[in-house]
Amino acid sequence: VSNPRELEFQTLLATAHALADKSGAVILPHFRTDGAVDHKGGDLFDPVTKADRDAETAIREGLAQAYPSHGILGEEFGATATDAEYCWIIDPIDGTRAFILGLPLWGTLIGLTRAGLPLLGLMDQPFTRERFWSGETESFFGHDGATKTMRTRPCGELGQALLATTSTDFFTSEEEHRRFGALSSAVRLRRFGGDCYNYCLLAMGHIDLVVEAGLKPFDILPLIPIVDRAGGIVTSWEGADPREGGRIVAAGDRRAHAAAVKMLTG
Amino acid sequence: VSNPRELEFQTLLATAHALADKSGAVILPHFRTDGAVDHKGGDLFDPVTKADRDAETAIREGLAQAYPSHGILGEEFGATATDAEYCWIIDPIDGTRAFILGLPLWGTLIGLTRAGLPLLGLMDQPFTRERFWSGETESFFGHDGATKTMRTRPCGELGQALLATTSTDFFTSEEEHRRFGALSSAVRLRRFGGDCYNYCLLAMGHIDLVVEAGLKPFDILPLIPIVDRAGGIVTSWEGADPREGGRIVAAGDRRAHAAAVKMLTG
Repeated sequence: VSNPRELEFQTLLATAHALADKSGAVILPHFRTDGAVDHKGGDLFDPVTKADRDAETAIREGLAQAYPSHGILGEEFGATATDAEYCWIIDPIDGTRAFILGLPLWGTLIGLTRAGLPLLGLMDQPFTRERFWSGETESFFGHDGATKTMRTRPCGELGQALLATTSTDFFTSEEEHRRFGALSSAVRLRRFGGDCYNYCLLAMGHIDLVVEAGLKPFDILPLIPIVDRAGGIVTSWEGADPREGGRIVAAGDRRAHAAAVKMLTG
Repeated sequence: VSNPRELEFQTLLATAHALADKSGAVILPHFRTDGAVDHKGGDLFDPVTKADRDAETAIREGLAQAYPSHGILGEEFGATATDAEYCWIIDPIDGTRAFILGLPLWGTLIGLTRAGLPLLGLMDQPFTRERFWSGETESFFGHDGATKTMRTRPCGELGQALLATTSTDFFTSEEEHRRFGALSSAVRLRRFGGDCYNYCLLAMGHIDLVVEAGLKPFDILPLIPIVDRAGGIVTSWEGADPREGGRIVAAGDRRAHAAAVKMLTG
């Protein structure tokens, strides 16, 4: 660590890791529990909401101790002091449906913005013991104590691209279905499912395009620096600022991104 | 172990576990390798095929030593002595697309039939270190050294059911899309992706229905005893014998199964 700015970044990143350690310990006992979904009545999402809330509470408590002046935007408890210079973005369980069905493809998203710009991001999967995060200039993958750098892979043409999307059920208009259908007809392979995991595997160089709709800011903000610093790009379907969520396209190669944006706006 | 038949079953099951240990060690080095998919040309499925072949070869070598008289039906090397009383059914990597994209939702399927009837089944996921298998009368889940019994959960009505299917891209006719669409409109939640994992999570009581099409015998035979002995049922969409694959519906509760078959044949 060679300068104060880098030291500050590393301290903030260490906090993100510590928060993920906490949230994983809180969420894991709720995963695949008996009766997690009570068919006798009530909201299907209740058990997830409980794990979500407990995890976000744990993360907020950690942040209140470490950085009481920082803002927080969380899925469960909304916005707190989000006009602060630093603002943490928390989605305790991204991939609610995967969580409910017992699939280990959900993840805890922890991001940090400075003056509104994504500064760092982290995705934690405590069941598989995988963690994906952004450094200042690179992205990393940790698994079972080993850490490696992640890089997106080259993909010059849509005809080569492997595309992932969680579900077409999140597309809300015929127009969205039509555009996505046109794009996915042009790629080499498409696969459904995956949630936040897809963006991390794009950063790792195994997926070329992730295309989604209906995302909230906390669904995407923590993932942007992970993709960016692995060499990829995240925008709206129109190629614009992705920070508000909505319709998102991520690519590992700018050529595939440009070609995808062209089809998603056509 | 109280009688010769049970002793024989336990010996065969121990062989299945030993084969899964071997196949996992062979496949894992191929998972998420750099350049696993070569965009410069060639078949997208080549790297999977290599892992598939190496694993099936290792399994076949193990079986040739342990049970030289048994038959084998494998995805890669076809049928060998499948008129024998005992026949092993091998799909080294079920969930090829998941494997290619780096998602840990593929699995190694190892099944055994006696006189054509499913005797035992095992699904191994070496990356997450999860294993699902059938005993003689129950099904089990092993993870990180701990083993627990699996049971399907009650689900009396389609309106309560959580449904999983890998992809509607495997439906080949308008009729299949229409029937699946009608069923999935009637359930509480549907999710895409999952492959063989979905059947195991149904056995574990987290998924109520799995509906697929275009399956091969080796895609489904090893999963049938896992679902059956956890209290569930696997049939064709018409409610008939599922052993040939094709269009498959699995359910954790016979009431949900009957209601699903009604919609899938309507």
